[in-house]
Amino acid sequence: MKKVKYNKVTLKDIKYLKTLVEDGECLVGDEILEDFGKDELGTVSGKPEIMLYVKKTSEVSSIMKYANQHLIPVVVRGSGTGLVGACVPIYGGIIINTAKMNKILELDEANLTLTVEPGVLLMEIYDYVEPKGYFYAPDPGEKSATIGGNISTNAGGMRAVKYGVTRDWVRAIEVVLPNGDVEWFGRKVVKDSTGYPLKQLMIGSEGTLGIITKAILKLDPKPVESISLLVPFKTVQEGLDAVPEIIKAKVNPTAIEFFERNTILFAEEFLGKKFPDTKSDSYILLTFEGKNKAELASNYQLAADVCLDKLNAIDVFIVDTEERKEAVWKARGAFLEAIKASTTRMDECDVVVPRSEIANYIKFTYELAKKYAIRIPSFGHAGDGNLHIYICKDEYSDEIFEKKLQDIFKEMYDKAKEVGGLVSGEHGIGYAKKPYMENLLGETQIKLMQGIKDVFDPNHILNPGKIVD
Amino acid sequence: MKKVKYNKVTLKDIKYLKTLVEDGECLVGDEILEDFGKDELGTVSGKPEIMLYVKKTSEVSSIMKYANQHLIPVVVRGSGTGLVGACVPIYGGIIINTAKMNKILELDEANLTLTVEPGVLLMEIYDYVEPKGYFYAPDPGEKSATIGGNISTNAGGMRAVKYGVTRDWVRAIEVVLPNGDVEWFGRKVVKDSTGYPLKQLMIGSEGTLGIITKAILKLDPKPVESISLLVPFKTVQEGLDAVPEIIKAKVNPTAIEFFERNTILFAEEFLGKKFPDTKSDSYILLTFEGKNKAELASNYQLAADVCLDKLNAIDVFIVDTEERKEAVWKARGAFLEAIKASTTRMDECDVVVPRSEIANYIKFTYELAKKYAIRIPSFGHAGDGNLHIYICKDEYSDEIFEKKLQDIFKEMYDKAKEVGGLVSGEHGIGYAKKPYMENLLGETQIKLMQGIKDVFDPNHILNPGKIVD
Repeated sequence: MKKVKYNKVTLKDIKYLKTLVEDGECLVGDEILEDFGKDELGTVSGKPEIMLYVKKTSEVSSIMKYANQHLIPVVVRGSGTGLVGACVPIYGGIIINTAKMNKILELDEANLTLTVEPGVLLMEIYDYVEPKGYFYAPDPGEKSATIGGNISTNAGGMRAVKYGVTRDWVRAIEVVLPNGDVEWFGRKVVKDSTGYPLKQLMIGSEGTLGIITKAILKLDPKPVESISLLVPFKTVQEGLDAVPEIIKAKVNPTAIEFFERNTILFAEEFLGKKFPDTKSDSYILLTFEGKNKAELASNYQLAADVCLDKLNAIDVFIVDTEERKEAVWKARGAFLEAIKASTTRMDECDVVVPRSEIANYIKFTYELAKKYAIRIPSFGHAGDGNLHIYICKDEYSDEIFEKKLQDIFKEMYDKAKEVGGLVSGEHGIGYAKKPYMENLLGETQIKLMQGIKDVFDPNHILNPGKIVD
Repeated sequence: MKKVKYNKVTLKDIKYLKTLVEDGECLVGDEILEDFGKDELGTVSGKPEIMLYVKKTSEVSSIMKYANQHLIPVVVRGSGTGLVGACVPIYGGIIINTAKMNKILELDEANLTLTVEPGVLLMEIYDYVEPKGYFYAPDPGEKSATIGGNISTNAGGMRAVKYGVTRDWVRAIEVVLPNGDVEWFGRKVVKDSTGYPLKQLMIGSEGTLGIITKAILKLDPKPVESISLLVPFKTVQEGLDAVPEIIKAKVNPTAIEFFERNTILFAEEFLGKKFPDTKSDSYILLTFEGKNKAELASNYQLAADVCLDKLNAIDVFIVDTEERKEAVWKARGAFLEAIKASTTRMDECDVVVPRSEIANYIKFTYELAKKYAIRIPSFGHAGDGNLHIYICKDEYSDEIFEKKLQDIFKEMYDKAKEVGGLVSGEHGIGYAKKPYMENLLGETQIKLMQGIKDVFDPNHILNPGKIVD
């Protein structure tokens, strides 16, 4: 563990740093809204001294050179939609804000790639490529996240079951290293066995090893047909038990989402909109995508048969009308915010477990809710074993909630370890999940990670205190 | 660059090392066949002092502990089918031979994974999973390679166009670190944002950071229908120009292979078997896979129309009979060996370039062949930009060939850099390609790689002199 004595940002620093960005666009001290000291979940906070809006790689490079020489910590921020404090400047210093570095630079149809700046939003990528017949598959719930943030957390999303995660869709990245050097990791190529995979190391490193200033994304031809099945089950157990059976049926779904009635009721209230069905205890939402109806049909019909004949499903609703699609997907998209709105404060757990362990794991969270007399709603990417579990403060005092939270998290991550899971499926480690990762992976792996951090960032200038110390 | 003074293996070492493996199974000094000092291509050679056959992770761990303490270099060897000297013990010392650590441990149908030991051969994996309806997609040409070797080079193969490379099919690996510690990187899970991706770093590290002792591979449901189109073109230029157009047509092929008439003629001679057609200068072989005929048909018919109507193809042969499939795929599988058999000695280049640059790159190799008055046959994964180019010694003397080789390689890798490519698409860097990687990636990236090597293997005990010094 490295201890660096960071310097505070002085008036001289501010004067110089302003000259490094276009039109001197920056905010200083109390000009910076409190929100920029937090992320979406807000459980970690810090106080940035200066926030610089960058528009060019060269600006990022100059800032890093200066910060590295003057031992001023730097944190990069996109949309700030993270949940583990990764973009929070816990040691103060500089925020490099990439929100305005947001141009789509090139669609290369011969190489099936899209080159973007880091501040481009996920939804802007879909809007750009889909009308042209292309497909960027990763679909994390938060569509207003930046692609830079998505790459930095190796964001996942629902379609991971079939298409993988952000890592699988990044051909190359331009990176500014902590000392200001600018390097391309990867190229506009499909295969790469050229030495240690520095690009892979950068993906998911949460802004601690380098700053992504351009990304070349992989595209696919867009699947033109899509259909979802909403499958209600009498009990939560039956719903969850169905997931591995659907996988075994080899029907190749794009997504398998699981949710309980309660979560839907929160979403209905939050949105003021009705969900197609709320009579059952649990639901599975299956999605299929393909190039044509024939390809789809064989898969989803088989899935429906399996659910009805073998898995005791109450019914199978085909989500094919625009109205139904809207109702289902709006609700699914609102789960996180709906749960957030249902309580005074909450914290979250993003474990990933083998798909075969999901039912057991969710049952375990029910036991915890009972044991600690606290509300623990959850929903999750059942198809890929990634669960989002929320511990709700409700009417408890801060002290009691904090105590319960610590005990519950300890039990949850111990259980994840026991069943062969990991601490984070897609939200990352950031600041909030460090102790749990250390406990799950053990000292040897943490030391390797610390060694890697030291190699890339010997002064620990870039996003210090995140992932490893 | 680190200089380590390695120790020679003494009689005392041999006595102790023998006790570490089952039945003391090892070979010492001249008992070790010369072949074990080389790989498949044989351009790099070394002299191992002892070769130990391991069967258990604990054996590998004990050997590493001892070697690390006694500063004896260790190289891991599977089938030895590499082409860049990665498995060659250039500093002597110990070979850990994993060929007998070759059990398939578990097929997990709920999690769609296969757990194997590192010495399992690629063809054994296919033979095991395919009759059960599962699919392991990576298909490097050399099916007698071990899975440990495949993971260590991040091997690619023809189906990379649609399904990606080995990296995309590894869920987790058990690794023995250079100091003997045993760690699992990754888990039997689909998503992972839990700290720096140590699993990713290990994949493609060519046995320099740790030794893979188990692997959990991802499986998919097996596509049950498959069809190939063999498309002849009048000129090489027309054949190559067709590739980006086929990509643009969004027909989602599994593979797009390119080859010239000469390569086919070598294969015919080597195999003593006729290829369906040898009248044209160049050929493209397109493969489509899907769950049913309807899914296939729409794609391959569109591809055929594009080839005939827009790309000036002479004809489109459908490779659907068993006889034709056998003739085409046997030939394709024999290209490397056929070219090897056609000359006295050869060396190879495995560049990967953007798909749009393939035609230019191949043309450039023709110019080189003329300029240096030497034979340079090639074939390649046109669909993913990965070319295999062979420089044939034929009747030249060793001295003249060496000189030409150096000059040609310099020009080839400079050209790859110029067009945005990389040194290796799938064969790796090993020993043979180090200077070209250094030149292409530059000092900053090499220093990062050296730093990573030092973190994992501070004594440079494991496969020293490979990838980085």
